[in-house]
Amino acid sequence: MPFTYRRVIRFGETDAAGVVYFAALLNLCHEAYEEAIASIQTSPAINPRQFFSGAADTAVPIVHTAADFYQPLFCGDTVSIQLTPKQLTPHSFEIAYIITGADGPDSDYSGLAQSRSDVSVRAITRHVCISIAPRRRVALSPALLSWIATLAASAPEPPKSDD
Amino acid sequence: MPFTYRRVIRFGETDAAGVVYFAALLNLCHEAYEEAIASIQTSPAINPRQFFSGAADTAVPIVHTAADFYQPLFCGDTVSIQLTPKQLTPHSFEIAYIITGADGPDSDYSGLAQSRSDVSVRAITRHVCISIAPRRRVALSPALLSWIATLAASAPEPPKSDD
Amino acid sequence: MPFTYRRVIRFGETDAAGVVYFAALLNLCHEAYEEAIASIQTSPAINPRQFFSGAADTAVPIVHTAADFYQPLFCGDTVSIQLTPKQLTPHSFEIAYIITGADGPDSDYSGLAQSRSDVSVRAITRHVCISIAPRRRVALSPALLSWIATLAASAPEPPKSDD
Amino acid sequence: MPFTYRRVIRFGETDAAGVVYFAALLNLCHEAYEEAIASIQTSPAINPRQFFSGAADTAVPIVHTAADFYQPLFCGDTVSIQLTPKQLTPHSFEIAYIITGADGPDSDYSGLAQSRSDVSVRAITRHVCISIAPRRRVALSPALLSWIATLAASAPEPPKSDD
Repeated sequence: MPFTYRRVIRFGETDAAGVVYFAALLNLCHEAYEEAIASIQTSPAINPRQFFSGAADTAVPIVHTAADFYQPLFCGDTVSIQLTPKQLTPHSFEIAYIITGADGPDSDYSGLAQSRSDVSVRAITRHVCISIAPRRRVALSPALLSWIATLAASAPEPPKSDD
Repeated sequence: MPFTYRRVIRFGETDAAGVVYFAALLNLCHEAYEEAIASIQTSPAINPRQFFSGAADTAVPIVHTAADFYQPLFCGDTVSIQLTPKQLTPHSFEIAYIITGADGPDSDYSGLAQSRSDVSVRAITRHVCISIAPRRRVALSPALLSWIATLAASAPEPPKSDD
Repeated sequence: MPFTYRRVIRFGETDAAGVVYFAALLNLCHEAYEEAIASIQTSPAINPRQFFSGAADTAVPIVHTAADFYQPLFCGDTVSIQLTPKQLTPHSFEIAYIITGADGPDSDYSGLAQSRSDVSVRAITRHVCISIAPRRRVALSPALLSWIATLAASAPEPPKSDD
Repeated sequence: MPFTYRRVIRFGETDAAGVVYFAALLNLCHEAYEEAIASIQTSPAINPRQFFSGAADTAVPIVHTAADFYQPLFCGDTVSIQLTPKQLTPHSFEIAYIITGADGPDSDYSGLAQSRSDVSVRAITRHVCISIAPRRRVALSPALLSWIATLAASAPEPPKSDD
């Protein structure tokens, strides 16, 4: 079951080209990830504030990201970010994101918009679970495994450039 | 000839985990790209303010990015970003970036630091030249071709995940 | 009638001190302003995308801001931003913001938290309406006057340092 | 002796109005503060990484800021930020900033540009020294007092709205 996060594009995310700055789109994916961590019931539970605080014994930093940008997004656009995680190894997982502009513009970046006109961005992030001291890879916690299992049933297609 | 941009990591780029936020690292790559556009003599010349204004007849939006994160960066770290562009098609080019922490920490994200201990981030951005109205792909301008040719002699190794 | 905007603090807004970066708190105020522009029915109507695009004949840039920070906010906190505009002159208005942490921490920045324990930030922004070409002050539009009148009934106390 | 920090405005700092986003201008002031902390020899010395890490026993959070915006700044502009601190109380200090566009545009926000045509922004930040646990005000450290004394000889005029 993919998770969907919706919000409005804000002025501070745009740049002088009049559209959302590319790095702000990756930030938008991370927000969806935060919301999915906070919203999904897992067993055992994940404490979101501790999870993102750097104060826990383990952390799950992003070790890779990739994104394809199909259509620009504008201030005031309502977007939905669909998110699907999958486990990669005992100590890592990947999340796929699809950002869709609910009221998307006609224009497109790539000349490919007619075939996938509603998708603005496809992105992935890969996360590795590490212990803080000493810094080394550790297995994903039961809580994270539960989170992945809840959301992972149907993964969206990854960015084409990483196939 | 790769281009190198140096600057200090700022507090506003860090997050509650104590290190630079992943999306801020892609912003750092874009800054190196801006500096390389402004610094390199091309024929004909590129006007940097117009190039990044959205006011020109053509634009070169980013249609893809990918990044591998090897080691965290901290507030106050001096980093160097090495940048190398290469032309992909008549209307597109790719830039490869290597971010190196001049005073890099011992810790690493991935457990691979011993083999490439000084590299914090490898990233790429792909750019397509489009006309603004109507929105369609157009050939790279002579100025951009000159910029690429000046810097493109020796491209660094791309992020491993995009091989 | 003040307008209230609620949202969750995101990881990208925090800094290495573990709390929301001060400039991100002013961005949060601007988001509340954007939401209030988009949500309030005015006569004539305001087109939010055009209003924030830089493509209109007039603009209302921020010419002054001030903020007092009472208590830190953390990733995952749900905050509410109460916003009240008031007209200052025929061509300018001011907005007052109060950011309250719905699940605020016990700690405080200033040692004054016991007397106003639920307020994290008080801020203002001042906006002047200008024509784009030539650049000069112009009267607030009927739509903006309608927006101010709808929300302006009861202004919150401004930041103490600007009294 | 005021401290001066120079850098180029970056694309990621601009918004869809084509100029630097107001909150990014306060971030720019903080960068100048970071550079001034790192650059000035004090006795005893300040460790910049520790100072901005949240890992020290004491912290100096910003409890107030104010800014006046006179002229917009554009991507590619080179700006200089002049910074002057002064001690306010045994546990607090204020920093005044003047941002000047080295190659400033003719346009202005406020209609006042002819009399101060080279100043884009005047801002202040106020900082209170606190202990982390328990959270209460403490005296400024000898290192901070030394930093203030070195730079504080001639303070620039504060933002007019805070007179």
